[in-house]
Amino acid sequence: MSTIDKNLTSFINIANDSDFSIHNLPYGIFSETEDGKRRAGVAIGDQVLDLSVLETEGLLSLAGGSYFDKPTLNAFIDSGRDNWTQARQTIQLLLSTDSDALRDNQDLQEKALFKQTDVIMHLPVQVPGFTDFYSSKEHATNVGTMFRDPSNALLPNWTEMPVGYNGRASTVIVSGTDVVRPSGQLKPNAHDRPIFSACKRLDFELETAFVVGKGNTIGQPIAVDKASDHIFGMVLLNDWSARDIQKWEYVPLGPFNAKTFASEVSPWIVTMDALAPFKTSCPTQEPKPLAYLNEKDINNSFDINLSVELLPENAESATVVCETNFKYMYWSMAQQLTHHTITGCKVEVGDMMGSGTISGAAPDSYGSMLEIAWNATKPVTLSSGETRSFIEDGDTVIMKGYSEKDGIRVGFGEVRGKVLPALSFDFDK
Amino acid sequence: MSTIDKNLTSFINIANDSDFSIHNLPYGIFSETEDGKRRAGVAIGDQVLDLSVLETEGLLSLAGGSYFDKPTLNAFIDSGRDNWTQARQTIQLLLSTDSDALRDNQDLQEKALFKQTDVIMHLPVQVPGFTDFYSSKEHATNVGTMFRDPSNALLPNWTEMPVGYNGRASTVIVSGTDVVRPSGQLKPNAHDRPIFSACKRLDFELETAFVVGKGNTIGQPIAVDKASDHIFGMVLLNDWSARDIQKWEYVPLGPFNAKTFASEVSPWIVTMDALAPFKTSCPTQEPKPLAYLNEKDINNSFDINLSVELLPENAESATVVCETNFKYMYWSMAQQLTHHTITGCKVEVGDMMGSGTISGAAPDSYGSMLEIAWNATKPVTLSSGETRSFIEDGDTVIMKGYSEKDGIRVGFGEVRGKVLPALSFDFDK
Repeated sequence: MSTIDKNLTSFINIANDSDFSIHNLPYGIFSETEDGKRRAGVAIGDQVLDLSVLETEGLLSLAGGSYFDKPTLNAFIDSGRDNWTQARQTIQLLLSTDSDALRDNQDLQEKALFKQTDVIMHLPVQVPGFTDFYSSKEHATNVGTMFRDPSNALLPNWTEMPVGYNGRASTVIVSGTDVVRPSGQLKPNAHDRPIFSACKRLDFELETAFVVGKGNTIGQPIAVDKASDHIFGMVLLNDWSARDIQKWEYVPLGPFNAKTFASEVSPWIVTMDALAPFKTSCPTQEPKPLAYLNEKDINNSFDINLSVELLPENAESATVVCETNFKYMYWSMAQQLTHHTITGCKVEVGDMMGSGTISGAAPDSYGSMLEIAWNATKPVTLSSGETRSFIEDGDTVIMKGYSEKDGIRVGFGEVRGKVLPALSFDFDK
Repeated sequence: MSTIDKNLTSFINIANDSDFSIHNLPYGIFSETEDGKRRAGVAIGDQVLDLSVLETEGLLSLAGGSYFDKPTLNAFIDSGRDNWTQARQTIQLLLSTDSDALRDNQDLQEKALFKQTDVIMHLPVQVPGFTDFYSSKEHATNVGTMFRDPSNALLPNWTEMPVGYNGRASTVIVSGTDVVRPSGQLKPNAHDRPIFSACKRLDFELETAFVVGKGNTIGQPIAVDKASDHIFGMVLLNDWSARDIQKWEYVPLGPFNAKTFASEVSPWIVTMDALAPFKTSCPTQEPKPLAYLNEKDINNSFDINLSVELLPENAESATVVCETNFKYMYWSMAQQLTHHTITGCKVEVGDMMGSGTISGAAPDSYGSMLEIAWNATKPVTLSSGETRSFIEDGDTVIMKGYSEKDGIRVGFGEVRGKVLPALSFDFDK
């Protein structure tokens, strides 16, 4: 396990509770205006360091070319682990108190540093494939209890494999993008046939996603003890879900329209290098997984605090509705990636793979409104006095995540999305 | 409905039973060697016309740039319907007996025409998203009868919506690519727990897929009467399936590992313009679909003959195991595309959307071995004397498709894939 160098400090003023300490250095894509040039940056405190400027100035040279004056991080990630390491070390040194190259160059600072509140963040990678797993035992049990059979809530395959499904890469959106309430088919119990309607049970799912850093060849599975080499970093993911549409459509081929309208991610990719000091174990896996899923390294999870806040349109403050931790996930990311490729599926740089809703054991650690309000039987009271069983128009959902140890904090920032009213449709013809 | 100009003939010698008449002109991507330059061509008889040469020579000029000296067709398709029309008219004229520009220019012919047997075909588009529907009533009924409840074979949502799921774009492969038999989790009935094994029930699924020609904006569904404007053309699709892996994994989130090892397509995209003369109706939809799926145009399907042949490793000839027709599909492509976007999902140029297995009413028109051999209870005898319930190592599966009317033929060629033995795994550590 990697250790934290507590003596490492930055000349940049960083608040103690900032997610973006010098130990973090997450990568993102930003521009100064909506249509302005997109390039790569690293978050540091409340600022963004423009990596394309460092590259131009000759302060950040990586093997094989230049990577940061580009609208996505794919080329950098694809350039390989040696470059990831080289970039991290170089950037960390440039931002440290010990190095004068940036510290003492006011002109360069003015060119290369931007306030985060002054820039616009974009999707950090072009996402070739989006997959969503279902790896929280508590979540799967809760959903199975509500919708299937409480006495057999967990299906027999659940403890044998990280169950997952293919999502829709085209609707992965970046934090801050408004989400239009979806309309589609749903079937009220009292009706013989479905109706076309705006979703009445709009929900979030608190998840993380990992970003694939190295692909494989089609037909060649990734061994579980090599899988970590294929993972570049992680983001927060709000896997927006239309529960009523999902309930009607999902048998037998799985969720489709209920999920493909928005999968919203945080803009900063926190690298596995930054998260390494926060390694911990997954829960005990019983029965022991089949050999292809059996990891040597039991430190296969991460201690990441996660929360969800709900902010109604005119409320003064947001209400925390969930606090949980990534370490509750039953299946590790390595196991997910290995299982994904075991029949030969090709994965690609930039693929995002969602954890599935991360629920803990207690009701205040459940990762979706469906579970928190227990299928609308226990509505939540917000600080504004309003109650919620699902998400209403005008509500903003904010997810946050961070790791902390020995006073050192490495965080994700947030993924934030606001719900707009459904479109109106006119089918008269 | 568009009519066929029967007087249109080519100066190129085209066999009467060729799929690639002058009325067809499907687009593909080819190279002369495996690593050679990829560029766009059109199939004509047993030859390929190199469109990049026509462009260079100034014989094929389209609005907005040049499109054919590229390794995929995405830019051409994305350039819009006016260009599709312009390209088709120009190429058809150049290949016709009436035009001398190519007919009388031997040098140009030598530069621009290649024998199909001398070139290598590649995936015609970069595929951003791959979706698979489930739109044959006969197939869904057969599968439901075998695996669920014969008295309720068709699930209640099936007649209300074109049920579909997200597939894996990264494993869409082109005809001729060998397929390694997948290994994964399967659960024999006699076992308490699953085993890791090579798939024992490897199957094909006879499908077509349409290629999206025009995307939408996220949050903005495509109206059903506009959906045809968003479809560029069609290919044949063998949706390779591992039935035993599928059976164990698919509840509740749908097929995943069972499908993501190979989705094999024919190399030539037959355009909707070429297929227009073969329009016909879908089967009557009862109950009448909800308004958002209700098409004005009842000529919303196509009369396309489809077949599957099986060729064992050392057999002298292939055996036809299925003959069916695209027109049996219950849901139209327009309805599929509209349903796909109804909650706001974004679709993109190059997306491929599979029809689902196309089964007819009679056993010899079933589109998968699962149905043809009725869950291994009625093995098929091949011309070699061997029998098959599923696909064995060394077998080649060949799918063909064509439309024909008034002596005019517009065909797809074939999608052909051979099964290689499973990898051997060593999990000792």
